[in-house]
Parts: sequence; structure tokens; C-alpha cells
Amino acid sequence: MSSPVAPDALAVPPMLYYAWATDDDAVSLPEPIKGMIGQVLGATSDSARPVRDADSIELTPVRLEEEDLDCLRGVVGEANVSTEPGQRLPRSLGKSGIDLFFFRGGDDVLDAPDAVVAPHTAGQVLEVLQWAEHAGVAVVPFGGGTSVVGGVAAVTGGHRAVISIDMQHFTAVEDIDHESGLATLGAGLTGPEAEKLLAAEGLQLGHYPQSFPYATIGGYAVTRSSGQSSSGYGRFDQMVHSIEMVTPRGIIDIGRAPASAAGPDLKELVLGSEGTLGVVTKVRLRVHPVPTVTLYATYHLPDFDSGAKAVRMITQQGIQPTVIRLSDEAETAVNLAGHGKDTQAPVSGGCLAVCLFEGDDNQRELLAARRDAARAVVEHCGGTDIGEQPAIKWEKNRFDAPVLRDALMDNGAIVDTVETACDWSKVRLVHDAVGEVLQQSFIEGGTLALVMCHISHVYATGCSLYFTFVAGQRNDPGQQIRDAKKAMLDKVTELGATITHHHAVGTDHRGWMDEEITGTGVEILRAVKNRLDPAGILNPGKLLPDPGQ
Amino acid sequence: MSSPVAPDALAVPPMLYYAWATDDDAVSLPEPIKGMIGQVLGATSDSARPVRDADSIELTPVRLEEEDLDCLRGVVGEANVSTEPGQRLPRSLGKSGIDLFFFRGGDDVLDAPDAVVAPHTAGQVLEVLQWAEHAGVAVVPFGGGTSVVGGVAAVTGGHRAVISIDMQHFTAVEDIDHESGLATLGAGLTGPEAEKLLAAEGLQLGHYPQSFPYATIGGYAVTRSSGQSSSGYGRFDQMVHSIEMVTPRGIIDIGRAPASAAGPDLKELVLGSEGTLGVVTKVRLRVHPVPTVTLYATYHLPDFDSGAKAVRMITQQGIQPTVIRLSDEAETAVNLAGHGKDTQAPVSGGCLAVCLFEGDDNQRELLAARRDAARAVVEHCGGTDIGEQPAIKWEKNRFDAPVLRDALMDNGAIVDTVETACDWSKVRLVHDAVGEVLQQSFIEGGTLALVMCHISHVYATGCSLYFTFVAGQRNDPGQQIRDAKKAMLDKVTELGATITHHHAVGTDHRGWMDEEITGTGVEILRAVKNRLDPAGILNPGKLLPDPGQ
Repeated sequence: MSSPVAPDALAVPPMLYYAWATDDDAVSLPEPIKGMIGQVLGATSDSARPVRDADSIELTPVRLEEEDLDCLRGVVGEANVSTEPGQRLPRSLGKSGIDLFFFRGGDDVLDAPDAVVAPHTAGQVLEVLQWAEHAGVAVVPFGGGTSVVGGVAAVTGGHRAVISIDMQHFTAVEDIDHESGLATLGAGLTGPEAEKLLAAEGLQLGHYPQSFPYATIGGYAVTRSSGQSSSGYGRFDQMVHSIEMVTPRGIIDIGRAPASAAGPDLKELVLGSEGTLGVVTKVRLRVHPVPTVTLYATYHLPDFDSGAKAVRMITQQGIQPTVIRLSDEAETAVNLAGHGKDTQAPVSGGCLAVCLFEGDDNQRELLAARRDAARAVVEHCGGTDIGEQPAIKWEKNRFDAPVLRDALMDNGAIVDTVETACDWSKVRLVHDAVGEVLQQSFIEGGTLALVMCHISHVYATGCSLYFTFVAGQRNDPGQQIRDAKKAMLDKVTELGATITHHHAVGTDHRGWMDEEITGTGVEILRAVKNRLDPAGILNPGKLLPDPGQ
Repeated sequence: MSSPVAPDALAVPPMLYYAWATDDDAVSLPEPIKGMIGQVLGATSDSARPVRDADSIELTPVRLEEEDLDCLRGVVGEANVSTEPGQRLPRSLGKSGIDLFFFRGGDDVLDAPDAVVAPHTAGQVLEVLQWAEHAGVAVVPFGGGTSVVGGVAAVTGGHRAVISIDMQHFTAVEDIDHESGLATLGAGLTGPEAEKLLAAEGLQLGHYPQSFPYATIGGYAVTRSSGQSSSGYGRFDQMVHSIEMVTPRGIIDIGRAPASAAGPDLKELVLGSEGTLGVVTKVRLRVHPVPTVTLYATYHLPDFDSGAKAVRMITQQGIQPTVIRLSDEAETAVNLAGHGKDTQAPVSGGCLAVCLFEGDDNQRELLAARRDAARAVVEHCGGTDIGEQPAIKWEKNRFDAPVLRDALMDNGAIVDTVETACDWSKVRLVHDAVGEVLQQSFIEGGTLALVMCHISHVYATGCSLYFTFVAGQRNDPGQQIRDAKKAMLDKVTELGATITHHHAVGTDHRGWMDEEITGTGVEILRAVKNRLDPAGILNPGKLLPDPGQ
């Protein structure tokens, strides 16, 4: 797993601390949307909370002694330990709306990691963890920093300090097995880095979450990420063949075969562990040849019910598109409005769904048979095939939405997303009920909200529901989002849906874990954590609810 | 989950205590096979160890007091507690070759459960477990009793007695959700019972392991069973939406959605737990409409390598047959020999593979496209499509093999099976190496062995390898099998394959768990067990290796 030790300094995370964008890819808001949010939500650039200048943000003082830092330098090398504010600040929070509004207005002190430490090997991670346990210092593993649930918040959990273990040096691709379709990827590789290295071997992972440009292999694993091609290539957890995690009690390497009956599947304990049980250093993953053929289809359905029925039947009949997503009426309308005056919108009203079918040249006939079968289902459900173009356009712009959020925030809007998954028979109920409680929550905060939803991850028995809400910034936008999320989590819990389909738990959802997995389930997680991390140094305040909560 | 309390007596497991068969379905050995094993293995009915008469078998004495039994009767009712030898004997062991040879020859005392207890509700199970914990009595959950790894052996684990909790009253089907394709099945339903109840609703589970006629839903879950249609409908663990397990510390009900990112997946701790963490009482499962169309195909491949390549490519290209299985040269030859003189064998030499493609009428075109795609792959690998008939015949006889084992044992042979799974790139290596160590082990025991293998569960990254061995009975056939299994387990561990793909761990494989999941992994399981079952009463001596082993 070890890479050669870099001679030079620690890289800073590329995203702006107050935004999803980097310096290069910020966008400005299209005029029609600017007009719309001004009119409906009272959101204008004048009403927007201003971005706090980095220099003006007070960080918690460094609580480590020089002696501590010397120990860390002794393990990872001098260049890989930093207490610079410029390194600590961007590793203090993730990228939820709540996180981003911390950097807009106000003057709160930022809880920052006391130091950033970047090991090169699993052995170094083990040494750092053992030092931290001995020294009584908390540890937050850091990959791309894209958590939208508080997963990387620099929480000490009662320890005297907290360090960020940055995984940026874990960038190796090892042991490629073309025949089995397996590759071992370093936990610090981002999506594009991993795909570039695999593409050089003619291979692809095919994991495209919205966080793809920045998030890392280790982060995908410990949060049970799910990408836009999950219908074809699976959720990230389904791609994992084996996984290495370093804990204060030693290194676990789990997974010897594609499937096993050798007891409980402990890989499934590592997946989703969010840095609370150990630090994932490498993951052996299922990969496939880079597809050479993509068939596109866009379907227009009269309404969300018929759309959901079509998506369900396509899934249950095993037609297996690589990508399938259905927008509800509101999201469809907003997407179509984005066409502006110059481009003809393909339809008006109803719901749009896009499907992609990927494969290689040999599979062209089977892919076509699949697309035909999908179209037959859509027609059976009262819909029509409206051609390839909208689906092609969707693919081209697939990672743009989060950057647009920055521009909306600059223009006085709140934007964030929440997601769940439920059985097919509950889709309508959950869709409507969550939409309603989100709307109600914002109204109570003094603003209307635009709530949109799509289905983008499908299973034979159910699907995800992904909600985007846009509202006006009022006195405390962070609190407006917190209130909306609480209303949503209470509602999905009441309806028997899950509190998160692919965003994970972090700080923001942990208060609902008792209901999600029962009190006995929480006790099981605590028992495992106590065994692996008896001092409780690993990512405190995440995943597990506080005892007695 | 509760059923009305049955007024009458406890049903006895239907299988003969010394055999796989029931009284009704025993078969005699075809003459050609009889001749062959006589000639090659020196196995004849004269050399066979004789079946011990039930009355002549001494059971361990009942170590429970009348007071204990009264407590149990108070919970489950008088008719549902038995200390009769006729009830205890068939719940003492499973159906491995080692188990069955216990009942052939010799005069060893049988470690039997002290009582059989059959609760009707999860609440009663909880009461029994809490009584057992308090009373210091071990508990073995009992479903169909088909374990081939010692999973139901009546081990006290140092406790003063051991009871068998028979799940025969957990036979309800609840909460059928046609839209989501979900049904909740009682843990005590056997395969045929479950399918019959589902068929009345037009639904099917589609789980067809070799143990299908007798094994139960609860047993499938806690052993990670895998059926012959796993390629189409998944392993049993993949079918599980949610699961209820009663532990001495309360009832866990895990699984709220088809997928979730709410932390580690604790369902995956219950699956494969083999009764060591609790008693599974009901399972919510993915079901599908009863298929109305089956397309059959049989392929002849020049050899095992080309066959494995074809099976791999069919899987990796997502062609997704419902059933796909490939016999190696030895198994193909034996299957063809079974045709005898009167039926023309379809080919000679090489390897046969069968494929089934199931669906409903609407899917006929897609099913045909899939079968065409599979044929194209087979031809690409140098094979030929030899028509439907052998595949149809395979389906008809799919549950016959274990009954034939009884007849072989009556005729002086040892027959048993071992299985593993590995990545595709290791298939040839593992196939040959396991074949070799099995052969070598029997030779050291003074007999040749016929070793056959098939691939019957496939994944994008690898497959199962299922070995059947037939040898001659020598002085101690149980020990001959133990030696062969040890040789096999050492070898697969060395080669990085799993110690079991779908037979589970039980008593027989637990010595290899440290290597399978690492010492830290075993520590994790122990931590979970200590939390849920601090007195260690649940199925002692299974799954976990002895500490310090």
C-alpha cells in the first residue's frame, strides 16, 4: 500500500472552504432562476449572508504541545504534519448547507482540528492511532471532505485535542486482476484519479456520486456511497470485494471471495463505519471494462405515479439499465425551465425519466433488447419515449448541481438535499409526506420553499427518494436547514423509511439511529467500537447517538 | 408472528436419523454405479458399516430436573416440551457424512439435547432464552436439521444441559406486499411450505438449495444458504429485506428499506450467525411473481477451462441466466454414465453446462435475447449448444443427489461434499489443488476417491466450487471424512479462497475462522456475542473458534 514519501508539502483540499466549487469552476446564476427566486422566495444578492473572509475566521487554538507534534512528525515526517490555519480550516467541516452557512455571516469560532497529519502507509496510520490513544487525542479521518452530514466535523469528544488524518497519500492502484475484474485502490484516490488510473488498464469502476470530483475511495466505503450508475454497477458497498481497516487494536483485512457463508459478513461492519471503528486504507473493488457503447433513452410519463410504476417494473423485470432516474413534476418543471427561451423544451408537464444502457460492442444486441423492453414498460404505463437528447444532456451536466448551490447561496437562497429509501408501496406516501413537512418547516421559518424530488437508485423492492429544497435565507439559514432536516427525519422514521440512503449518518442523523436500528442494534455497534477503540478516539460524535440520548 | 397454539404433539423431523431420505423417498443404487464403486473403490454392501437400530443407541441421560421442565412447560405449554428419546435423537446431529456415519457401526453414546422445546411466538422464545440464561442451560435452535457442518450438534459448552428450540410452529406468512415484492415468512417454514403459501398469492421465493425439501427459512438465513437459482434470484442473504432475531437481551428487528447508508449493516451480522447470537423468528424477503416462461439451454464445452471461461463471461456481461451450472470433466462423465444403456448420452467427454432463463410472458423477447447472448459466448469459447433436454432433465432431478448418498453408504461408499468460492483467476488453481488434496487424503486412508466438481453460484468477480467425493469405507469413515475436510480447508485457506460458500461454519469449520476473518474479526464477533449472550448459552461450540485455539 505504501507510496514513495512525497518530498514536499501537504496538499490543501481543492474546494473553497465556504462552497462546493473550487476557484476554477464557480458559476453564476442564470437570469431566469435569479428572477424566479427573487420573486417567489424573496431571495436576492442583497438578502444573502456575506461570505466570511478566511483571515477573519477565528479557529480554536492549537491544543497540542510541541512534544506531541514531534511524535507525529517522527511517524509521518515533518512535511506531513501541519498546524497552519490554511490547512486546519478546510478540514474543519464538510459541505452540508449547515456547514457552508457557518462561513456566511456571524462570527462564531470554528472548531478546527489541532493538526493535520498525512501518513503514507497502513503501518503509519496504526502508529498514529496508537499514539493518539495513548495521548488522549481524537482522530478524524479525512478524504475529500465532501460529507453533507457532518462526517468530518472536528469534534474532540472530550479528548484534549483532535487531529485530522488526511488520506491524500494513499493513491496506489494495486493488484489489478483483469480476469476476475478486481482492482485494489488506495483510500485517498478521488473518483477522477481512480478512474484515470483504471482507464489506463481499460477498466472502469463506474461509481458516479454527485461528490465524484472530490470524494475518495475510503470515503465512499465508510459512508456507503451510491452513484448515478448504481442500477448497472451497484452501490459502492456492493462493489467491495475486500477492505483493509486500521484500528487501534490492529489491522483488519476482510473479504476472501465474492461471497462466503463463513459467519456474519464483517465487511458490512466496516462499510458505513464512518471512521468510528478505524481508518480504511485500501479497498479491493469490482471493476469492469470501460464501456464502448451507450444507448440513451428519455421517457415522458404523465405523472409521478405512472413514472414510479414504470421505474419499478423496469427494475423488477430485470431489464437493468445502467442509469435510471425519474424526476417528479416539480423537478421536471425546473429542469425544463433551465432550457430558457432559446432551446425548445421537449415536453411540458408530467415527469421525465432518463435511462442509459452501457456495455461493449458484443453486447449491442442485448443492450438494444433491454432498451426495447424498457420502452415497452413505459408505454404500458402510459408514457412515451421522447428520444436520446435529454438523456445525453443529463449525462453531460451530471456533476453540475452542487456548484449551482453556491450561486444560489450568493443570491439569498438556501439550497440543500435530503434523501431516504423505502419500499415501492410507500413511495407516494413518503414522497408527499416529506415534501409537506419540508415545506411546512420553511413556512414556519418565514419563507416558501421549492421542494423537488427524484428517484435515482432502484432495487427490486424499493428505491431512493432524493429531495432538493430551495428557500429564502432568513435570520439563521443554518437553523432553517436543521429544522427542515429534523422534520424530514422524524417523518421518514415514522413512516418506516430509512434515515439515509447514501449520505450516511455523521453528526446530523445520529439522533435517529436508535429508531433506525433499534436500541439493541446501537448496543451492538457500541460493543464493537469498545473492542476496537476502547479509548473512543475515533471520529467522536458521529454515527452513534450519545448514550442515554 | 404468533400462530394459534397447536393442541397436539410435537412433530418429529421427517428425515430418517441415519440418512437424508425419509421413509418414503429412499432409493436403491443403479446397477452400473454399484458395479463401478465395487470395482474401483472396493465398496460393496458387505463392506458397508451397518445402520445402528434406534433402540440400541444410548443417549446422554436427561440432565434437566422436573422443575426445569415445568418452567419450560409454563412458557410453551405441556405438549411442546419433550424428553422422549424419539424426539431427542433426530435433533442431536445434522446430516453431514460425519453425522450420518455416527449412526452406522460403533456404539458411541449420542450427545442428545436434554429436551425439545417448541415455542409459538417471539415472546415465548425470549422467555425460554431468559430462563435458559438464568438456569445455565445451553440452547440449540433447530429448523430442518439439514446442517452438513455440525450446526445443530447438541453441545452443552460447559453448561449443565442443552435444549433444542424447535421452530416448527413459526409457519406464518405475513404482510405480503405485491407491489414491493416482499413477504414476511416464519422462520420454521420449510422451502416447499413457503413456496406453497406464496404460490397461492402468485408469488415465488425461488430459493432452491439441495436442502430445499426440509430446511427452513430461519436456517437459510443464519447459514447464508445459496440456492440453485442464485444467479437469477440471489443468495438467500441477498433476498433478506429485514429480519427479526430474539436474543437474551431483547428482540432485534433490522432492515427498514431496500438499502441504507445508516451505518454498518447489522442485518449482515444476523445473517450467518448460526444461532450463536439469537434465534431468528421471521424474515422479510424479496419475492417475485411465479415465472410462467422458462427457456432451457445445455452447452457442451471442450474442457473445464473453456467452460469456466464461458460461465465467467456470461456472468460478467450481465446476461443473467436464472440458473447456470457447469460440471467439470469428472462430474460430466458420471452424470452421462447415469444415462445407462437405454438412453443415448448427448455427448461424450468435455464438460456440460446447463442454463435456465425464467420470467413471465412479457419478458419472452428479453429472455430469448439473453439466451442468444449466452450461446454466443459459449461458441466464442469453443463450445456448442446441445439443446434443451439435458437442462430440463437436470431441473426434474435437482433434489435427488443427497438421497443417492444414502444408497451409496449402504453399499460401502463414503460420499460427502465440500465447497468454497474464489476469484475467477484462481478457479483452475483451487479446482485442481482441492481435488488433489482430497484424493491424497483418501489414499492415505487406504482408498481411492472419485472427486467431482461443479460451478453453480456465479458472481462478476468469481464463483463457488462444489466438490463431491466418493470413496470406500475403511475402518472409520467419519474420520476419513474429517481428514479429507481438514486437508481441503487447509488448502483453500492457503490459496486465499473462502472456507465455505454456502454450507456455513458450524463445528466443522470453526477452527479456520481466525484465518478466514483475521483474529481481529473473531474478536469483533466475540464482542457482539458477549453483549447479546453474556452467559454463552446460544449454540455453543459453533461458528467461533475456542479462545486461544
